[in-house]
Amino acid sequence: MKKGISASKGYAIGKVVVKMKTEISIEKRHIDDVIQEKERFQKALELSKSQLEKIKAKAEKEVGKDKAEVFESHIMLLDDVEFAGAVTVKIVNDHVNAESALYDIVDLYMKTFQAMEDEYMRERGADIKDVGSRILANLTGNNSSIIDMENNTVVVAHDLTPSDTAQLDKSKVIAFVTDIGGRTSHSAIMARTLEIPAVVGLNDITDSVKDGDLIIVDGVEGEVIINPDKNTLNTYKIKKENYNKEREKLKALIDVETFTKYGNKVEVFGNIGKPEDVDQVLKNGGEGIGLFRTEFLYMDRDSMPGEEEQFNAYKTVVEKMGKRPVIIRTLDIGGDKKLSYLPVPEEMNPFLGYRAIRLCLDRTDIFKVQLRALLRASVFGNLRIMFPMISSLEEFLKAKEILKECMDELTKEGKSFNKDLQTGIMVEIPAAAVNSDELAKYVDFFSIGTNDLIQYTLAADRMNEKVAYLYNPMHPAVLKLIKMTIEAAHKQGKICGMCGEMAGDENAVETLVEYGLDEFSMSASSILKAKELIMKK
Amino acid sequence: MKKGISASKGYAIGKVVVKMKTEISIEKRHIDDVIQEKERFQKALELSKSQLEKIKAKAEKEVGKDKAEVFESHIMLLDDVEFAGAVTVKIVNDHVNAESALYDIVDLYMKTFQAMEDEYMRERGADIKDVGSRILANLTGNNSSIIDMENNTVVVAHDLTPSDTAQLDKSKVIAFVTDIGGRTSHSAIMARTLEIPAVVGLNDITDSVKDGDLIIVDGVEGEVIINPDKNTLNTYKIKKENYNKEREKLKALIDVETFTKYGNKVEVFGNIGKPEDVDQVLKNGGEGIGLFRTEFLYMDRDSMPGEEEQFNAYKTVVEKMGKRPVIIRTLDIGGDKKLSYLPVPEEMNPFLGYRAIRLCLDRTDIFKVQLRALLRASVFGNLRIMFPMISSLEEFLKAKEILKECMDELTKEGKSFNKDLQTGIMVEIPAAAVNSDELAKYVDFFSIGTNDLIQYTLAADRMNEKVAYLYNPMHPAVLKLIKMTIEAAHKQGKICGMCGEMAGDENAVETLVEYGLDEFSMSASSILKAKELIMKK
Repeated sequence: MKKGISASKGYAIGKVVVKMKTEISIEKRHIDDVIQEKERFQKALELSKSQLEKIKAKAEKEVGKDKAEVFESHIMLLDDVEFAGAVTVKIVNDHVNAESALYDIVDLYMKTFQAMEDEYMRERGADIKDVGSRILANLTGNNSSIIDMENNTVVVAHDLTPSDTAQLDKSKVIAFVTDIGGRTSHSAIMARTLEIPAVVGLNDITDSVKDGDLIIVDGVEGEVIINPDKNTLNTYKIKKENYNKEREKLKALIDVETFTKYGNKVEVFGNIGKPEDVDQVLKNGGEGIGLFRTEFLYMDRDSMPGEEEQFNAYKTVVEKMGKRPVIIRTLDIGGDKKLSYLPVPEEMNPFLGYRAIRLCLDRTDIFKVQLRALLRASVFGNLRIMFPMISSLEEFLKAKEILKECMDELTKEGKSFNKDLQTGIMVEIPAAAVNSDELAKYVDFFSIGTNDLIQYTLAADRMNEKVAYLYNPMHPAVLKLIKMTIEAAHKQGKICGMCGEMAGDENAVETLVEYGLDEFSMSASSILKAKELIMKK
Repeated sequence: MKKGISASKGYAIGKVVVKMKTEISIEKRHIDDVIQEKERFQKALELSKSQLEKIKAKAEKEVGKDKAEVFESHIMLLDDVEFAGAVTVKIVNDHVNAESALYDIVDLYMKTFQAMEDEYMRERGADIKDVGSRILANLTGNNSSIIDMENNTVVVAHDLTPSDTAQLDKSKVIAFVTDIGGRTSHSAIMARTLEIPAVVGLNDITDSVKDGDLIIVDGVEGEVIINPDKNTLNTYKIKKENYNKEREKLKALIDVETFTKYGNKVEVFGNIGKPEDVDQVLKNGGEGIGLFRTEFLYMDRDSMPGEEEQFNAYKTVVEKMGKRPVIIRTLDIGGDKKLSYLPVPEEMNPFLGYRAIRLCLDRTDIFKVQLRALLRASVFGNLRIMFPMISSLEEFLKAKEILKECMDELTKEGKSFNKDLQTGIMVEIPAAAVNSDELAKYVDFFSIGTNDLIQYTLAADRMNEKVAYLYNPMHPAVLKLIKMTIEAAHKQGKICGMCGEMAGDENAVETLVEYGLDEFSMSASSILKAKELIMKK
């Protein structure tokens, strides 16, 4: 048995197909006829582009337009004159072969991206590697990444690039297993979209299996078993059957309202990062959006998104959700989440720094564009505004004041908005929880952000592996603060929700129900299980 | 009026003497006779050394041995064969004049130190600059840093180096005023030791005054007034008189016990960083040591301090304090306080990272050496052990378990220690305050560390100027946590102290007295004022 990281839940029993790491060795050669070499590179580029266009079309059909977007960015790199130009210049000036020039430029690009702090930008390095490998394979005629496979295939790979997964025959693949990667790697996300189990981060699994081996993939525990004995095989057949039955049973809950054992109605909502994510929430029976992270609108671009663009994004979400509530969190940028067009000074402790509401209250020019867009979208559905990182009443009142300014402006301009729109705060800083009885008098709702609340309460950065062991949602102090916050809200007749990972945590749900939490918001895939847990209690 | 940073309190009215930034321009010249040039450099080194030895002797007499130690490190640099060697090699190899070679090497050393993260090491860069300037002055025959001065002189300088201040005639200087520097700069520390007012960080004060100007230095507000009119002058004369009277009055409190208006006896203790600091605490009427930061033993060296060395340091402090309590905090290193011989991985948020008790529970090899030394010193006075950064009961119990192991070892070795020694914790993580009712059952005492508690409760790094405005000791959530902690201690019949800056904060003392805080620990210079404030209430 080998232990890795569970990236997508479920069980699979099937035959191994190993996708080997294709290591192409690059030789640097002197080239006399650089014009011909340039043309050879150009042809490889064009071939790569036509391949990627086919892959993109296939991906759009199979996994949806948004998931296929990655290939658009690959194609853009092929079209990027700077990139192709750099390779061409290197061929001509250094009189080297295209493979060697390409390798050097790809390496330079990768290093640049990998040195960046932002996780998103670092992942762009992987994209460049993927495209680079494709061109290289086309230069060397070594492109054979499409794998022939039978039914019930478990793909075992060092890592799966976007183009690898796009080219797999999804009707035959029943699980992914990889040496490297984490829960947010491309293969993990793809497995969850396809709803097949995946275990990643197994280190040396590609060296431990061969094509045709029987393999059990336990996506629940994050384990794989190679060539199991008969008993083990039977055990897992039963586990798999039970898991699938359970999943079918959960699907019956999609349209069911959720009541606790105390007879209280609670809401189970979904967290989203992009307008497209709404579909997954609805598919899983989400009764609203408890947290719309608006950062996506601001990231991966060269300038601030304008009011029109933001308005359209918010409008799309509220319209899709109909009458259901949509809680939209204002910009939570700064600290570790950086924007290229909004430089902030380096901070020693970004988690305790200039971010979210602190930045927005300081940069009202940025804040007001978002607030105006939110207000204008509020007439199209049940939109609520939530301010992040509130530590004191003053900050909330200041934010409301700016919101009021935007309302006055819109009134003057004759633009409509919902005057009774609800405004609430994230309770994610200990001070807000401790002082919740005061804050509850002013807000329309609370939403406890457990990820940050736990980090600050325990003074432990959960991304820091040396202290991650301290991060404990069930720490008595954390539970006390949560209880205190819920009670403070209820005393003022206000709603208290939760939008951290804890809201979907099987170990925590019973306690949260007892405390009287009104609304649980979580990733779409956890909604049905949470509904079941809440109703059982 | 010019506003700067108050570095040492008090008022002074006197005549300006401007110590100009001596800008020596260095010319690079070709040298044929490099042997003679080497000798010229050697002579300047020797002259510098004999000057520094005189300065050191003078400083030892005037400000004490520990404050004069800085000159020992200057002399050591002159003796450093690597440093002198580098200059000599440059003279010989590059055939350049000694000034130019020296300048390049000093610049290289400075840049190396200034690039370091540790504040202490960065300050070493200033030392090197100081020594470099001295050698340079001796090479050029330009050494005139001793200033002739009259009585009532206010020294105005760009910055004051350790050797500048050592050479001043202390009987004539009544205040320091500088362009640059902060509360921890050398000139600030020196002013507090000499008990004369100082205002630093005035930006361009050297350009705004000339020798002989009349100047008012307001070390309370951090302001200076140049050539004041008659009314202003009179106002400040009165202010100065009142301040001095007040100081005399405070001195009467040195041996007075402190009772609150409710008739409760409270203890006023001092915080120290080194054994020598005990004198200042006693001189100001401190009734114990509420916080001995043991980091100094570990910093500025190449290897871990051994048990004997630590034992001697702790013994010195407890013996000096007699029967008075000495609360020694175990090692609070890691995060931003780094040790060269204990490499820890770079952290994104060091304040939420691997430090203090987290490091000690992980590295019991280091922890046990300190605990054994503390136990052995415990028979020489009233020593108590305090664990920093406790977030949960488990951590405290684990620390006690390791302490018990050390006790068992010492018993076996026939070494004596105080078996009833008290152990307590710093309450500086929100979780500890929130959960204080549980923790109070197990500890002998609490000491609230407000600096960190406020930072974590408000999720604001007070060293980060973009969010420092959020750092507020009187935030209702902070006050609630403090009250909660004191009440929890009292419910179990335990003592609750405080050792953050808030304990000496004039605005906070009344509230803390009302809450029933038992022990206030602060920097020596704040003790008498705090005694007065507590008794008034």
